[in-house]
Amino acid sequence: MKMASKLNATADALYQSVKNLPIVSPHGHCDPSWFAENKPFENPASLLVTPDHYVFRMLYSQGIGLEELGIGEPGAEADPRDVFRIFVAHWHLFLGTPTRIWMEYVLYETLQITAKLTTQNADAIYDQISDRLEQDAYLPRALFDSFNIETLATTDSALDDLSYHSAIKSSGWTGQVIPTFRPDGVLDPLDHNFLQNLVELASLTGLNLDTYADYLTAIRARRAYFIEMGATATDHAIDIIHTEWLNEPDQIYQRIKQGLETETDARSFYGHMLIEMAQMSVEDGLTMQIHGGSKRNTNRQLLLEFGRDMGADIPISTNWVSGLDALLNRVGNIPSLTIILFTLDETTYARELAPMAGHWPCLRIGPPWWFHDSAKGIARYFDQVVETAGYFNLAGFNDDTRAFLSIPARHDLWRRGVALHLAEQMNQGTFGGTQAEDLAQLLSTGLARQAYGIGI
Amino acid sequence: MKMASKLNATADALYQSVKNLPIVSPHGHCDPSWFAENKPFENPASLLVTPDHYVFRMLYSQGIGLEELGIGEPGAEADPRDVFRIFVAHWHLFLGTPTRIWMEYVLYETLQITAKLTTQNADAIYDQISDRLEQDAYLPRALFDSFNIETLATTDSALDDLSYHSAIKSSGWTGQVIPTFRPDGVLDPLDHNFLQNLVELASLTGLNLDTYADYLTAIRARRAYFIEMGATATDHAIDIIHTEWLNEPDQIYQRIKQGLETETDARSFYGHMLIEMAQMSVEDGLTMQIHGGSKRNTNRQLLLEFGRDMGADIPISTNWVSGLDALLNRVGNIPSLTIILFTLDETTYARELAPMAGHWPCLRIGPPWWFHDSAKGIARYFDQVVETAGYFNLAGFNDDTRAFLSIPARHDLWRRGVALHLAEQMNQGTFGGTQAEDLAQLLSTGLARQAYGIGI
Amino acid sequence: MKMASKLNATADALYQSVKNLPIVSPHGHCDPSWFAENKPFENPASLLVTPDHYVFRMLYSQGIGLEELGIGEPGAEADPRDVFRIFVAHWHLFLGTPTRIWMEYVLYETLQITAKLTTQNADAIYDQISDRLEQDAYLPRALFDSFNIETLATTDSALDDLSYHSAIKSSGWTGQVIPTFRPDGVLDPLDHNFLQNLVELASLTGLNLDTYADYLTAIRARRAYFIEMGATATDHAIDIIHTEWLNEPDQIYQRIKQGLETETDARSFYGHMLIEMAQMSVEDGLTMQIHGGSKRNTNRQLLLEFGRDMGADIPISTNWVSGLDALLNRVGNIPSLTIILFTLDETTYARELAPMAGHWPCLRIGPPWWFHDSAKGIARYFDQVVETAGYFNLAGFNDDTRAFLSIPARHDLWRRGVALHLAEQMNQGTFGGTQAEDLAQLLSTGLARQAYGIGI
Repeated sequence: MKMASKLNATADALYQSVKNLPIVSPHGHCDPSWFAENKPFENPASLLVTPDHYVFRMLYSQGIGLEELGIGEPGAEADPRDVFRIFVAHWHLFLGTPTRIWMEYVLYETLQITAKLTTQNADAIYDQISDRLEQDAYLPRALFDSFNIETLATTDSALDDLSYHSAIKSSGWTGQVIPTFRPDGVLDPLDHNFLQNLVELASLTGLNLDTYADYLTAIRARRAYFIEMGATATDHAIDIIHTEWLNEPDQIYQRIKQGLETETDARSFYGHMLIEMAQMSVEDGLTMQIHGGSKRNTNRQLLLEFGRDMGADIPISTNWVSGLDALLNRVGNIPSLTIILFTLDETTYARELAPMAGHWPCLRIGPPWWFHDSAKGIARYFDQVVETAGYFNLAGFNDDTRAFLSIPARHDLWRRGVALHLAEQMNQGTFGGTQAEDLAQLLSTGLARQAYGIGI
Repeated sequence: MKMASKLNATADALYQSVKNLPIVSPHGHCDPSWFAENKPFENPASLLVTPDHYVFRMLYSQGIGLEELGIGEPGAEADPRDVFRIFVAHWHLFLGTPTRIWMEYVLYETLQITAKLTTQNADAIYDQISDRLEQDAYLPRALFDSFNIETLATTDSALDDLSYHSAIKSSGWTGQVIPTFRPDGVLDPLDHNFLQNLVELASLTGLNLDTYADYLTAIRARRAYFIEMGATATDHAIDIIHTEWLNEPDQIYQRIKQGLETETDARSFYGHMLIEMAQMSVEDGLTMQIHGGSKRNTNRQLLLEFGRDMGADIPISTNWVSGLDALLNRVGNIPSLTIILFTLDETTYARELAPMAGHWPCLRIGPPWWFHDSAKGIARYFDQVVETAGYFNLAGFNDDTRAFLSIPARHDLWRRGVALHLAEQMNQGTFGGTQAEDLAQLLSTGLARQAYGIGI
Repeated sequence: MKMASKLNATADALYQSVKNLPIVSPHGHCDPSWFAENKPFENPASLLVTPDHYVFRMLYSQGIGLEELGIGEPGAEADPRDVFRIFVAHWHLFLGTPTRIWMEYVLYETLQITAKLTTQNADAIYDQISDRLEQDAYLPRALFDSFNIETLATTDSALDDLSYHSAIKSSGWTGQVIPTFRPDGVLDPLDHNFLQNLVELASLTGLNLDTYADYLTAIRARRAYFIEMGATATDHAIDIIHTEWLNEPDQIYQRIKQGLETETDARSFYGHMLIEMAQMSVEDGLTMQIHGGSKRNTNRQLLLEFGRDMGADIPISTNWVSGLDALLNRVGNIPSLTIILFTLDETTYARELAPMAGHWPCLRIGPPWWFHDSAKGIARYFDQVVETAGYFNLAGFNDDTRAFLSIPARHDLWRRGVALHLAEQMNQGTFGGTQAEDLAQLLSTGLARQAYGIGI
């Protein structure tokens, strides 16, 4: 992105001042095996198209079958070169989307492709990328280093043995890849594998889970193990935000263990467990992340044929105020606790999240998330949160991606957005250049380090 | 609107490139009798004030009685010249509204009025307009031609015999005026005339409607007739979006026919019929339009005294995700189906509509509708939908108007909004000039043609 | 705030044209005793920090205890100088917030402080302010005069004897300080002191309140007294907007008097009383203000330890359409009635409030309120209300503050926001300079005078 115009000159100067800062990536979905094994990425399609739901959902929305894109079981036979060709033939669909901006960055900056992405060039570019992937400089660890990543957090099931993280640690490579404790599967009785997950939890911890107290002990054990392995945060997803404190959790726990709970029981229990997680965070210092308001897998045919995460997760209206009431009134006044909130319902930025984060000591507002991690999404975020929450109640940036190559692109887009926002503030006279420069640094790296307790 | 400043120079160039494209008007409420009969419009008040709820609602909001404006029964005696005088005397009320921008275009561009609209000039301008209306160049067909309208779709009850459309077809005049199938009256049991409408449906089709299957057959017959007469789309309005699939629709159908249904039955039935309509669209290719979230006739005194559509339709909060769940999970994966969604709840642009249209093959997002068909409404629309849905999941522009003279003004405002948006994208480096020019064309005409299957 | 750039030159000219207009402050929370007694303000902390929930909530959100800030009982012992030091040490937290902009105006413009607010300067600035406060020019009345306040409305319980207002009137000082009738405490049975308030109401009016009719008579008496003392408006707060008309209000009234009402009864009764208030406004001409959608005191620990208004009031989603349905369908078509609506849910600007105010003769939209009284909040407000409601359905500006010194700063920020908005309209060609100048005046003072019936 070139920045013209007068205002943009200020923005560009601010951008230049943070462009080369290290990348702090405290939340995302990279696969730790990449860095443990350090094997070459397979091919351009499986690197850039197949795993990226931003990419294939858009293609699907215009009538292209997921099986043609090599997705899931039905796509097992697809030729990666054909997949890449289809992607290139529909490159125009991405005009105006962040996917296109990220992808251009990946192709032209990271992969050093020189030809333009056109149908004519599709095969040649496919070959160029394939070549790159075989070079040492494009192995996962080399890319990690050249991306100047200070810390990369993965997201890992509470039942994960973190063997890849162990392997990384013992490998001698110095890249900071840390796990994040994601316990939904052992906290939410609506998870289809919940009971099986408890069995696994028991086996992993060597504890029996007969009582609710045993169950808490097992979870504490897992948290301790994650902390030992470098984790600084937990991560929780919930569609309809709900927390409540149960005085007799063991009763529901027993019903759940026998498969006798109602849906209301299940929601109550998960709502209660979020509060338990916050209380454990007070004890063990893990930053708590709550991602709310995504209705998952709304396309049942795709779920059946292709599985989860097929681009049919759709945001819904969210109520943070009543949803977090029970949690906040139990632990919200404890300043040592940090809870980061992520919303897909932008109406809650100014109405709920900024006023809440501007009051409760424990709360921080996560960056614009998912569909809103985009140039205009970033602008709306700053527009709507800063005046009420200030900058210091924000959690900086996360890339939240499983598309490893797009990490520098995403942080770059954020830093440009930060620079543009701050330049506009200067232009309006809200503050001066020194303050803008300090804030640019903080928003690029400092706030993320603080919110997640990493690198400090 | 003059466009100054540097950024606006780019916008202006883009605007110039689409300014004179033909008008594609695939959704609106013009009266086909105008083009069938081609009689002069009656007078300035009945042309510009009385039929335009944007105009009279604003006057009413400032204490002017609808009867003074010649509206409805109570206004039958009002002198059109007085009505026009009142309008002119309150011209300042429209400052900052699109109504004022459209009206200025109509007066100064279309009607070639040279004096400014002031209380002093009211009578002279009234006379000037009256003069114009008697000239051949201002007859409906001549205006249609000089407006450069490629296709104009009207909106017609499923029970309409389309005699005016027939008359237009057989007249030898080549203007493309096509009907749109609007079946609410025979689908929604909450419509006050529902049972009477069924009687009429039976008589029109020569079918008895004893069973639900008969009823579907009759509706299919009407759809076929509309298609024969040129229709390419259906149109559906619903206040609270709701769809559900009934396994035994005949049972509710029978209750409804006997007037024994509950309100829940009625809502279920209408929700079911929307899915039937989508299924018929899969069969017959009609594009389906769903206009959601307007609470109609909220002012009961006006409804009683003046009837429907008196400016008291107010938008309400809308939930597209759960509302369309049943419909989409039945037909949403069929790429040959096109469903265009219109919202009055802008919070759903980024939260629901863009993510949904960016996934489901059948969905397209309709243009900013009604209160949001305005310069800033257009800007917010692009800001909030493009990054997630891209441009190719949009349905271009509709004017949705019964104010025929305002059609060029409304398309002009849209094209200016498109140009400004694209110029800002270029300025931010999102894409270059060639792409912006292509998109300007698409947004002005191409996407509407595609979404409605007209002129292609 | 300095205004650079080309667009801003127009904005600056418009700003200069209204910068020195008198201040019309028709809604706020200043203490009338200040002007009755005209005593010096006590110290910098109790003037600028302790009473300003915008200030202390932000400090609290970053872990500073309210007791350290001299708030409430627990803060009784805090040294004001220490409080001020803490505030200064955390001055960076306010970057990007209107609080910082207002405070800079107060310090540098109003209090004529020359040093910058830094930790090093904290004590010196504390002393400088203390000096100022002892000077005659900084006594409440002198500030009122130098602020060029035309009218200042306070907000007063229906049970207030308005003795300070009497004292002001009889003092010979010509400053216009008028009361506003705030009857929540005697209308809302959910108010914890409701029954006690009725006892007081009976004693104040010398009426018994045995029947609902007696109760109305007593309220009418209080309204009449407020009007006699200069009031032109009432003010009503309600969390979830609800109105309904009860045919037998006496029945619920009797239950309430005996403490036998349910929560539903209580909500019904308050909803009914809002309609009674509107009907009394039709009779006596008081403008009615409805502030909706703030969930009060969401932090129960702070409520217990420090009392109400501790910065934990959080906005919630609001539904004006159904909430006001009963009220509007009873009195909404009466043009002599004025009802001003204030929202904290910005999604209702374009979806509900602008369409409603653009239809119902009685409705006006209040200015951006509370968290939204900020540069970007003002921009969003104009962006979202004007195109549908026009300018003449707006109620101008209120500062709504208890921070007396910030009044000029707040009006100044509004006027800059108005100027910037109008300059952008001119730049887009929406209207010309003459109209922008007229609108700048109206938005700065005229619309507020009209909506509240003051100074006209």
